[in-house]
Amino acid sequence: MRVSNFPLSTLKETPADAEIISHQLMLRAGLVRRLASGLYTWLPLGIRVLRKVENIVRDEMEKVNALEVLMPGVQPAELWQESGRWDEYGPELLRLHDRHQREFCLGPTHEEIITDLARRELSSYKQLPITWYQVQAKFRDEIRPRFGVMRSREFIMKDAYSFHINQESLQQTYDQMHQAYTNIFTRFGLDFRPVMADSGSIGGSGSHEFHVLADSGEDAIAFSSGSNYAANIEKATALPPQDKRADASEEKTVVDTPGKHSIEEVSEFLGINASQCLKTLLVEGTEENSVVALVLRGDHELNEIKAEHLEQIASPLNFATEEQVKAAAGCAPGSVGPDLKITVIADHNAAHVANFVCGANEDGKHLQGVNWGRDIAEPITADLRNVVAGDNSPDGEGTLSIVRGIEVGHIFQLGDKYSEKLQATVLDENGSKKTMTMGCYGIGITRVVAAAIEQNNDDNGIIWPQNIAPFDVALAPINMQKSERLKDAAEKLYKELSDAGLEVLMFDQKERLGSMLANIELIGIPHRLVLGERGLDDAKIEYKGRTDEDKQEVELDNIVEFLLNKKQ
Amino acid sequence: MRVSNFPLSTLKETPADAEIISHQLMLRAGLVRRLASGLYTWLPLGIRVLRKVENIVRDEMEKVNALEVLMPGVQPAELWQESGRWDEYGPELLRLHDRHQREFCLGPTHEEIITDLARRELSSYKQLPITWYQVQAKFRDEIRPRFGVMRSREFIMKDAYSFHINQESLQQTYDQMHQAYTNIFTRFGLDFRPVMADSGSIGGSGSHEFHVLADSGEDAIAFSSGSNYAANIEKATALPPQDKRADASEEKTVVDTPGKHSIEEVSEFLGINASQCLKTLLVEGTEENSVVALVLRGDHELNEIKAEHLEQIASPLNFATEEQVKAAAGCAPGSVGPDLKITVIADHNAAHVANFVCGANEDGKHLQGVNWGRDIAEPITADLRNVVAGDNSPDGEGTLSIVRGIEVGHIFQLGDKYSEKLQATVLDENGSKKTMTMGCYGIGITRVVAAAIEQNNDDNGIIWPQNIAPFDVALAPINMQKSERLKDAAEKLYKELSDAGLEVLMFDQKERLGSMLANIELIGIPHRLVLGERGLDDAKIEYKGRTDEDKQEVELDNIVEFLLNKKQ
Repeated sequence: MRVSNFPLSTLKETPADAEIISHQLMLRAGLVRRLASGLYTWLPLGIRVLRKVENIVRDEMEKVNALEVLMPGVQPAELWQESGRWDEYGPELLRLHDRHQREFCLGPTHEEIITDLARRELSSYKQLPITWYQVQAKFRDEIRPRFGVMRSREFIMKDAYSFHINQESLQQTYDQMHQAYTNIFTRFGLDFRPVMADSGSIGGSGSHEFHVLADSGEDAIAFSSGSNYAANIEKATALPPQDKRADASEEKTVVDTPGKHSIEEVSEFLGINASQCLKTLLVEGTEENSVVALVLRGDHELNEIKAEHLEQIASPLNFATEEQVKAAAGCAPGSVGPDLKITVIADHNAAHVANFVCGANEDGKHLQGVNWGRDIAEPITADLRNVVAGDNSPDGEGTLSIVRGIEVGHIFQLGDKYSEKLQATVLDENGSKKTMTMGCYGIGITRVVAAAIEQNNDDNGIIWPQNIAPFDVALAPINMQKSERLKDAAEKLYKELSDAGLEVLMFDQKERLGSMLANIELIGIPHRLVLGERGLDDAKIEYKGRTDEDKQEVELDNIVEFLLNKKQ
Repeated sequence: MRVSNFPLSTLKETPADAEIISHQLMLRAGLVRRLASGLYTWLPLGIRVLRKVENIVRDEMEKVNALEVLMPGVQPAELWQESGRWDEYGPELLRLHDRHQREFCLGPTHEEIITDLARRELSSYKQLPITWYQVQAKFRDEIRPRFGVMRSREFIMKDAYSFHINQESLQQTYDQMHQAYTNIFTRFGLDFRPVMADSGSIGGSGSHEFHVLADSGEDAIAFSSGSNYAANIEKATALPPQDKRADASEEKTVVDTPGKHSIEEVSEFLGINASQCLKTLLVEGTEENSVVALVLRGDHELNEIKAEHLEQIASPLNFATEEQVKAAAGCAPGSVGPDLKITVIADHNAAHVANFVCGANEDGKHLQGVNWGRDIAEPITADLRNVVAGDNSPDGEGTLSIVRGIEVGHIFQLGDKYSEKLQATVLDENGSKKTMTMGCYGIGITRVVAAAIEQNNDDNGIIWPQNIAPFDVALAPINMQKSERLKDAAEKLYKELSDAGLEVLMFDQKERLGSMLANIELIGIPHRLVLGERGLDDAKIEYKGRTDEDKQEVELDNIVEFLLNKKQ
């Protein structure tokens, strides 16, 4: 491709409304343009990346015998009513009606439609298992679309659905899909983690998210140094300490802590570690007007999802109001301690501390040298906190590290959630009707592009992984317009590179070299060649990889082979 | 691909609600399934055809330097309000609003969006011409969706848009696109005609439709034997007769024609040719409560569009009521003749007949031997009729034939219709603002598939043209399950054919030969191989092309080369 036929739409300035780096770079490099809130037009350079992502996904789907279909984006309300989601799904579901006032929605996902297809097309266990997939524009009416295509309203998704006679067959396909997803993200050239998305069941495999790792990721992921364990931090189990609690060795005393409310303030004031302080949080309980105390170590964070799942705690989680705190503890929130007449639930680690500091339930005072069982009744214990780096892995192997990630894939064992509601049955070996078991498998195609950039960029622009780069090689001849000799050499090289199967973008228009090079870096082409008169004299060409510190000279005769080696 | 991994969804019965052959065969062959009125899911076999169609279209678009983009399907109302189409476009435009009550529509076409993109991205004549295209699902809320994907509500379209500094540049791109479309439909292997869609201007090139010829086509097309002239029959000009009208040689007489009203009845009753009878139709005129008479030869059909375009005739065309006929002619409609006190407009050919038969304006009576100028005043003349086979071509070269066609493509010179409204300007060579000139170019991707079937089928099923067939070759081993030797030979052949670049569908499941062969014919695979034990003994294989009368035996060793030759 030549720039004269493939004009770039790069911008010098960073658009003011783009908050994250991938959004900024996608606009600056000319991959997308905003049409309206959460709606983006993909420009030719972006399309080239999209196609590469799609092709890799399709290729790996074919390898696991998934069959491509294409369902309508506009879906009749009746099927969503059958599944119950017409009422359950919130305002993210864009509902509309046609000229005859029949109700439809714009599909955010296609479980209902595929299950309807399955119940019509499949009648016997002999037709199972079967997996259908599609690559299609979806619509979710996000309340606050942001971060460009990372969280847009219209986006492209690969969604696959599998149908099975039993759980065992589902598990088999699920495992294949897990491997296919691993292959896909490996081929993308991205640093990623498959992460258990199933709360509770350690080692369970009912649902995995695939995250591209990036510091700006919305999700925190805990993964083990010693095993494949990885889980969204919201769902990673914190194991109870294995050793015995230390003995009570200090006297309980009351200390004045005037104006000291937070753990930081109190621990600094008293000259002790935050891990030796316990914080007590009051939240609404399940029983009417009840308040429950949650106790955590000062250096740990409450995991609200874990707390919500406890039977004593109201869901969604609500912190007690100041009035409720006053009524239950007799003081302001900053001085609450666990010595209360209400239900007290301590995190395993908080219940493991001896001789601790805590609020005295009296404004301006704390207690020191407090011990469970001696000064305060032993509490109910539970896993209430977020895991932290260094925690033991919940599968018992290795310790946890915490990284941030962007969710780009999700595989899910649906079981009979939809097939039951829509009565999608087949006849089994004995000729009896059996509800099919289902799995579903999504990849956010457009989001992958943003995530790849979020992970791979520098001050100069995007750094595309080889396999999803819009072009392999940028060829920049210096002042080609002024020299027939250089023009001929550039054209010859362009042809040689193209014939070798490399995708070349040649800068064949009159443009300053500095501007060409800045654009090449901004749009992130992995390999860059600069060809000048002087190089021609020596039969050499200047090469620089996108992440190389320095440029180098390569024999013109060897450049094709050189690049083919680099590309591998 | 093996049938065990690529299950067919063929149906034995013709679905009752499918009216046309392509719709029936698309359902029976398992290419699509109906989700709701005008909404279809494409099954894996259909997807394979769709992809081939898309790939040919993309390839030819790239050749003319069209750049692929992807615009959102959901479009903000504001842009349609700017163009004026928010009010003009009827209920086919599906309007909706998001959770914030902002108005949008589901794009039936993308002129507004691309013009908005152009006005943001393009600032100088140096960036012109530029052509953008996309392949995308569109939505039109048809009042009566029918004929399967031929006239569905959600459908896939390739839409391209070009931007120019002037008409000359537009004409250049338009001509390139005309050629690209010709290449595309040629590569599809379809019998097609580019047809002028511009009324009036003979030889004009402002708009062309591309029609796939098929007897069931909704449109009638007139094309010349002696030139490239082709036009939708609604728009094809009928030239006035060149020779002089015959002299009056008969006496005008009144004949009783009791109970004879239609041209057929009267001409048969009187033993004359329908072309010697004139029919008189009364329609509403432009002036209030006025009625105008239109006179045509008995063997010609009124072209309502041509009539509507006359200044004397109300548009849309309304036939006079029986009361209006009685008031104007004094008789019932079946006996009206041109001897009237109202405005009489005769088609050129009707005005050219001498000694004709016509209604006597008296129930049960006709006139014979009537002549213009002698018995009735010379009428106003105009082109009022549909052209018929044998008419002279309006460009003066050759005579016309009439065929029926399905419109699958349309190229159009938009001029500044949208760029003016949306103020899409660039700076010209002199630094002054200039409104861009636009062209647009559509292909109905999903409709092409239906049209291909409508044109290519027989009693046994679809006959795919080679380039858009879902598979090249069907390989049917007889009872492969019972013979290791046959199984090995079939697998070996499958691999050889695949390695040679042929797309093979192997029937590797236990199934009666007759059923396999019926499916192969139904789904229209161009080449069929049957491999049996007996053939193996002789190192031969049975071959039959989809349209061949007879099967033939081919040396097993030569079959790959044989098929590669056939495919060319």
